Amino acid sequence: MVFESKELKEMAGEILREVSGITEEEILAGRRETVWGTEDRSYAQYMDHTVLKPETTKETLKKFCDEAKEYRFASVCVNSGNVPYVAEQLKGSGVKACAVVGFPLGAMSTFGKVCESVEAVKCGASEIDMVIPVGRLKEEDYEYVYQDVKQVADACHPQAEVKVIIECSALTDEEKVIACLLAKEAGADFVKTSTGFGTGGATVKDVYLMKRTVGEACRVKASTGINDREICDKMLAAGAVRMGTSKGIRIVKGERQ
Amino acid sequence: MVFESKELKEMAGEILREVSGITEEEILAGRRETVWGTEDRSYAQYMDHTVLKPETTKETLKKFCDEAKEYRFASVCVNSGNVPYVAEQLKGSGVKACAVVGFPLGAMSTFGKVCESVEAVKCGASEIDMVIPVGRLKEEDYEYVYQDVKQVADACHPQAEVKVIIECSALTDEEKVIACLLAKEAGADFVKTSTGFGTGGATVKDVYLMKRTVGEACRVKASTGINDREICDKMLAAGAVRMGTSKGIRIVKGERQ
Repeated sequence: MVFESKELKEMAGEILREVSGITEEEILAGRRETVWGTEDRSYAQYMDHTVLKPETTKETLKKFCDEAKEYRFASVCVNSGNVPYVAEQLKGSGVKACAVVGFPLGAMSTFGKVCESVEAVKCGASEIDMVIPVGRLKEEDYEYVYQDVKQVADACHPQAEVKVIIECSALTDEEKVIACLLAKEAGADFVKTSTGFGTGGATVKDVYLMKRTVGEACRVKASTGINDREICDKMLAAGAVRMGTSKGIRIVKGERQ
Repeated sequence: MVFESKELKEMAGEILREVSGITEEEILAGRRETVWGTEDRSYAQYMDHTVLKPETTKETLKKFCDEAKEYRFASVCVNSGNVPYVAEQLKGSGVKACAVVGFPLGAMSTFGKVCESVEAVKCGASEIDMVIPVGRLKEEDYEYVYQDVKQVADACHPQAEVKVIIECSALTDEEKVIACLLAKEAGADFVKTSTGFGTGGATVKDVYLMKRTVGEACRVKASTGINDREICDKMLAAGAVRMGTSKGIRIVKGERQ
């Protein structure tokens, strides 16, 4: 193990003290003013065009792939069973196929996550969004959480990047920081706020806290509740560079909710 | 493929015609009268004592295992990452460890489900509750659904039995019947109504329809909403012989909700 539990908590305490006085207004002070009603395709680079409902059919997957190619979104994000079809649709387009793994509970065995990841990468995914084992984090089995992320990251690199979903709505601030420290140390490329199946989504404060914790080592993906351009602008200001949403077209077009 | 799509739909149509005139009252006509307020340990054999929340810690898992041993429930049903701990707790007790797989969305790759199952069995699970790929069922890719179940069943047998969750709340009646026919043909030991993460749970009519469809080839597990003894009695009358619930103790004790 890279960290002792005590050391992790001390590091978390230090980060939490540093950010404790900062208000949402201060975090958002430098953000660009949201412009509505104009198409701005520069937003597309931030979007993981996301469709994760279990009843999703190929018809819907095709629609998402066509839209992603038209708008040049970063990726199309799907359940792992849909990767072969989506990767085929996206081939040569520059839009990546992204697969969720151990999703949405994160309580799957590490071996299961590794196999699901390896298969998804083999079938054409170049991004893997895995969920941490939240129960193990809560019982402070940090070695397990670290190994869970590390084994997936090691299995995916260098063919695919790994985003680690910490499911903020289920965590205390200290747990959020510790999850990010473990993910960073285990080789995550991104940390990500939410699955969309928990009790809450991305917040400005969580994204800021996550970015402060991972520094330059990882990027931050904000997901769940990214419903319009104003929210997107706030998340960018807080430190996110990727958004998980099915509302990417609305954001590019600048349509109000 | 064992069935043609047309053949499956014809079989489903026939079963649906057979049951179409039957009312819930008729299904429940022969059920035993629910007795409240008395402990009846004969109910315990039907119970999968179930704890699937992602934030579940070992403390809670231990409590569920201790309760299952005390009341002699059929199994303790957990996420696959919790199997090693739970199997260790249950060793020699006669209570089985049961793992959910591809849970709760069922949209994971078949390879991922097979690996998750094999690992769970290796770690001590003797029952596997897998979720079908609902999207593939809806797009009528029956070969995919059949192979998904068959590969998991083949990987698990004979060390473990396989329950196939069809997630009734997401399906039409025809889809429920077809899912059961495919599961039966693919070697399922049980068909199961629900994940608990969908929009609904077990109903008397669904359990009856599922039992009529699978006949003697499979057993039926009713899950989600099995909150007291009266519901349990109804499900038994409809044809279920296993219940997925966290309320097993209440049912054994005959406590009203």
